[in-house]
Amino acid sequence: MTNWTTSTNMRLRLPLLCIILEVILIILFGALVEYNDDTHAKLWNANKSHSATRDDYENEFYYRYPSFQDVHVMIFVGFGFLMTFLQRYGFSSVGFNFLIAAFSLQWATLMQGFFHGMHHGKIHVGVTSMINADFCTGSVLISFGAVLGKTSPVQLLVMAIFEVTLFAVNEFILLSMLGANDAGGSMTIHTFGAYFGLMVTRVLYRPNLDKSKHRNSSVYHSDLFAMIGTIYLWMFWPSFNSAITNYGDPQHRTALNTYYSLAACTLATFAFSALVNPEGKLDMVHIQNAALAGGVAVGTAGEMMLTPFGSMIVGFLAGTISVLGYKYLTPVLESKLKIQDTCGIHNLHGMPGVLGAVVGAVTSALASPGVYGDGLQRVFADAETGKWNPQSRGGFQAISLAVTLGMALFGGLVTGFILKLPIYGAPPDTHCFEDGLYWEVPGEEEGHELNEVATPNEMEKLNS
Amino acid sequence: MTNWTTSTNMRLRLPLLCIILEVILIILFGALVEYNDDTHAKLWNANKSHSATRDDYENEFYYRYPSFQDVHVMIFVGFGFLMTFLQRYGFSSVGFNFLIAAFSLQWATLMQGFFHGMHHGKIHVGVTSMINADFCTGSVLISFGAVLGKTSPVQLLVMAIFEVTLFAVNEFILLSMLGANDAGGSMTIHTFGAYFGLMVTRVLYRPNLDKSKHRNSSVYHSDLFAMIGTIYLWMFWPSFNSAITNYGDPQHRTALNTYYSLAACTLATFAFSALVNPEGKLDMVHIQNAALAGGVAVGTAGEMMLTPFGSMIVGFLAGTISVLGYKYLTPVLESKLKIQDTCGIHNLHGMPGVLGAVVGAVTSALASPGVYGDGLQRVFADAETGKWNPQSRGGFQAISLAVTLGMALFGGLVTGFILKLPIYGAPPDTHCFEDGLYWEVPGEEEGHELNEVATPNEMEKLNS
Amino acid sequence: MTNWTTSTNMRLRLPLLCIILEVILIILFGALVEYNDDTHAKLWNANKSHSATRDDYENEFYYRYPSFQDVHVMIFVGFGFLMTFLQRYGFSSVGFNFLIAAFSLQWATLMQGFFHGMHHGKIHVGVTSMINADFCTGSVLISFGAVLGKTSPVQLLVMAIFEVTLFAVNEFILLSMLGANDAGGSMTIHTFGAYFGLMVTRVLYRPNLDKSKHRNSSVYHSDLFAMIGTIYLWMFWPSFNSAITNYGDPQHRTALNTYYSLAACTLATFAFSALVNPEGKLDMVHIQNAALAGGVAVGTAGEMMLTPFGSMIVGFLAGTISVLGYKYLTPVLESKLKIQDTCGIHNLHGMPGVLGAVVGAVTSALASPGVYGDGLQRVFADAETGKWNPQSRGGFQAISLAVTLGMALFGGLVTGFILKLPIYGAPPDTHCFEDGLYWEVPGEEEGHELNEVATPNEMEKLNS
Repeated sequence: MTNWTTSTNMRLRLPLLCIILEVILIILFGALVEYNDDTHAKLWNANKSHSATRDDYENEFYYRYPSFQDVHVMIFVGFGFLMTFLQRYGFSSVGFNFLIAAFSLQWATLMQGFFHGMHHGKIHVGVTSMINADFCTGSVLISFGAVLGKTSPVQLLVMAIFEVTLFAVNEFILLSMLGANDAGGSMTIHTFGAYFGLMVTRVLYRPNLDKSKHRNSSVYHSDLFAMIGTIYLWMFWPSFNSAITNYGDPQHRTALNTYYSLAACTLATFAFSALVNPEGKLDMVHIQNAALAGGVAVGTAGEMMLTPFGSMIVGFLAGTISVLGYKYLTPVLESKLKIQDTCGIHNLHGMPGVLGAVVGAVTSALASPGVYGDGLQRVFADAETGKWNPQSRGGFQAISLAVTLGMALFGGLVTGFILKLPIYGAPPDTHCFEDGLYWEVPGEEEGHELNEVATPNEMEKLNS
Repeated sequence: MTNWTTSTNMRLRLPLLCIILEVILIILFGALVEYNDDTHAKLWNANKSHSATRDDYENEFYYRYPSFQDVHVMIFVGFGFLMTFLQRYGFSSVGFNFLIAAFSLQWATLMQGFFHGMHHGKIHVGVTSMINADFCTGSVLISFGAVLGKTSPVQLLVMAIFEVTLFAVNEFILLSMLGANDAGGSMTIHTFGAYFGLMVTRVLYRPNLDKSKHRNSSVYHSDLFAMIGTIYLWMFWPSFNSAITNYGDPQHRTALNTYYSLAACTLATFAFSALVNPEGKLDMVHIQNAALAGGVAVGTAGEMMLTPFGSMIVGFLAGTISVLGYKYLTPVLESKLKIQDTCGIHNLHGMPGVLGAVVGAVTSALASPGVYGDGLQRVFADAETGKWNPQSRGGFQAISLAVTLGMALFGGLVTGFILKLPIYGAPPDTHCFEDGLYWEVPGEEEGHELNEVATPNEMEKLNS
Repeated sequence: MTNWTTSTNMRLRLPLLCIILEVILIILFGALVEYNDDTHAKLWNANKSHSATRDDYENEFYYRYPSFQDVHVMIFVGFGFLMTFLQRYGFSSVGFNFLIAAFSLQWATLMQGFFHGMHHGKIHVGVTSMINADFCTGSVLISFGAVLGKTSPVQLLVMAIFEVTLFAVNEFILLSMLGANDAGGSMTIHTFGAYFGLMVTRVLYRPNLDKSKHRNSSVYHSDLFAMIGTIYLWMFWPSFNSAITNYGDPQHRTALNTYYSLAACTLATFAFSALVNPEGKLDMVHIQNAALAGGVAVGTAGEMMLTPFGSMIVGFLAGTISVLGYKYLTPVLESKLKIQDTCGIHNLHGMPGVLGAVVGAVTSALASPGVYGDGLQRVFADAETGKWNPQSRGGFQAISLAVTLGMALFGGLVTGFILKLPIYGAPPDTHCFEDGLYWEVPGEEEGHELNEVATPNEMEKLNS
């Protein structure tokens, strides 16, 4: 007989939840979702002028899809492999990342469409909605990093349902109501995802987690797998921050700023990683994570005239606070505030996200027609309306950060308590960070010595 | 003295075959292949109007090359790493994949050019021929999955020679003679490659394969390497299906449909993988493979007005039948029909390919000017000719499936018997799934404990 | 007390150097670097004509950025993982690659801008400068391959300072003074990086390196990680060679030529790898490296009318000499010339780079208006000036090779002696090829057997 409160068996729970969710998604997509003008056979061809070929080249597909694919790689390879650093949790890291991302991007399409994309009662989809859905998914995966190893896939899906919904609400308030700039999501994605996840893991606090302590660390090969995630995130971050800016100079400039910020961040990361170690040895945890903080920290200001100079200063600061956070703040958060943050998302997404929001507010407040010329309204939409006021713009950016923090902490609190119900098959304290609970796990190979599979004699005969 | 029928020594066989094949390729390329209008210095610049810069931006390179690169990644990283799941066959999986792909793309350029790309006796090449050659190569790599671990590299090259040739013939019949739609290759690539490979492995049946049984499974790290392949295939499948559609809305729509199909497929895969396991545990084999079936199943209908709703239903079905195939059908195919399918290509490419062909036939038959407007002829070429008849279009699609199955099974049968000749250095039953036969294999490392390389004392001195 | 000449402790050295370098970079960027016309809000919008949307689509971002991202992947994933083949040096391979690349791309932006990109006293940056900086970084990473495992991160940064500077000087002489063609960098990147690195490793010769011999080899999994690097380099090389050619047919043709060269090279590599082994077994070292030589060897001529036929011949030759170099030349270089070349860069970048320079000179000398038509001046800039003379063009190409070799050898000599100073914390002979010196290295996992983490009884209870 199944004891629902202690069993971790997923045989009914996971299939039921997946199938119900997907059926609901399919029904809602059938009722609400339509191709937009650039994907619809009738609408696209009706809108075209006569010069067919020229016009087809102007489909937004050609100007957004390469960015989308880079973002897609970050979501599935970047986040997925970054979390494989745990020695016995590689299947779950990549696999659950895959599952909740595949769910979240569908749910996000509906939620974001509902809050800010309805056209005559229908949600219009195309490559831009694909990018936005991936962005929202990124936020869920950030939160996943905080609870990594301590949650069942059912819990993660339930978390995604709530987080995606709240993400869409927060994004609507910031972008549509407050008119905030946040193309690369320092606030909407990173700050929101980080503090949401930190609050969830706080509510799910496990006083006896040290029973699984021996598995809560890396091994040599798992650190190399994690570096695959790191490097892909690092390389494609310029595409991430620039994916949904306006066309032309803003997109180009965002990619460039992010590139310089990350490069400076990487040097800061190596410097401080060696500095905080008594023997001057580099720590893989810092390299894997802190080197990315530079991308987070220019997520708001990246499209502005931050200059390469400014970007590098921001990146250098982000890398520095991130390493110091890993070294000095994370242990305190755990011991004093009972926040068990498996991947250290507070150091990679939380603090750098807040830094990015502040940099964005300051850069907004300093913007002027003298610097931006006719390009001002391409970056700050309200400059077009004539109500342009840099200082109030900076103020609205600051308010946006406060709203995001509030929404994230409140949402994480509620979601945390929902996830605390003993019905989701969460792992016991003794079996956290362990694939074997939810996966068929093969053994380790016994070695590749040739004489295991053929004696030298046999092999000689075969090769003669 | 070499005994040609039992030796697995590749010293003469492999170099001879590679060099002869490459010399033939070079001679044929010298005689037959020319740059097309978009790659030729003289022709491109002669065709341009006076506004030089604008025109250069319209070179097809800018609209096809990003898709090509995504497809290229799927062929070399996707297929290559997907097959590294075997514990002792990683070198061969990536390496032979590399070899036969590098050969096949050259040979495919000639065969496809010969059957449907001759211009005044010359084969014109450019980015579109690169994509088509990669597509044909994909078909060979699917078949490779069926015989993985049981064939020598010489056998694989011989298989590629025949399969590429027949692929080009079948593609010519479908696209040029029957006027079929199959932009993403549900029929031409997946169905063809799968049933060709299944027939080859049937002919090569090894009754005593269980002698290598202990190597025909994964280990922990090999499953993680395989996930690199899976995730890349999954992410870039929208690019694959849309790579050679018409420009504009069809290409955009295909990518979108594939994205939704794959997302729904992934939830179905996780659901049924847990459901068919007595303990509710997920199986890496399912996640690695079945989650991709959604891409295969919209390979024909993806460019049509399938809607996101329809795409998700198709994806969900594809994931479901694929997992059930792995669990219940594969063992029966092996025990009853003597089909030893190492990677389970029947579940990933075979059944989902047939499903994709059927979905394509139905969607074609339902197409109407009311839905597609002026875009109808952009998807269905014969709508332009005035002989448009959706029902007969659906019929031709169904005939195309039948032709493909016939060609694949017949071709696989003949090729299988050719590969059965005892001259290619095939591995003995006792040494299948084993890199050591064809590769210099290093040992496993003995550990990373620091005190193996330096006593604590020594290390302290170094770091002081 | 620290003994600066023997200690390998990085605690002060590495942070100090990183921070000083980054502060200098930030100051110089602040003083010298500006957005170019395509990234600057004011300039881009001032230059636009009235039809806003159309113009934004013509921002160079859309035509260069996908190539940039492919190059970026080659630099960070390609080079980084290619060098993970060593059994105990994966952290350093990926990590130091990451560090010196992040530094070099910033320093290269300044140096290249200084030598050939000043506008009114300012360096203008945009996507093209990003590609060029990555190219220069590639050269440093090639040299890194020669000294891999035998240098501290401080030494590597110092090497990068000098090499980037000299690279920019050499590039300026070749491209601006001699008017050479070298879009894919056979000379500027590969030949320069290889001979610079070989000279450095010659000066740093360690007679007692065999004390670390047992670590200077691969293990099974490290070879698979290295194949990730190889495959990415191979796939994206067409993007590398074509990234900064002129728009239109030259860019398209370069990608196509590189694709064919690499395919032919791969067959040659497999052929000769089996041929030179007594048992006909393939060697991972050859597959990982020599299969890429075809990309190097068409780095100069790729944009010319080399034809697919010519490209395949060049690729086949490159693969052949590269394998033969690994087998027969590398041991001689070490024993006779005291050149310890860890990755065998002489075989992958040195000889193929020289071959590429020669092929480029010959192809230049054979160029004619009859073949290129109006496209001639798109490839050979001086054809426009009326001073066109194919033979002298070929001569200038040959002179460029000689200059490059001279600059590389001289620069490597000087840099080598600077790196020999006993102040950088270089590893002792007994601890080369060992991560543990500069990294916190975790242990290896003890196995994934389920019964290690739960007895069958416990597990049954959990899953019931």
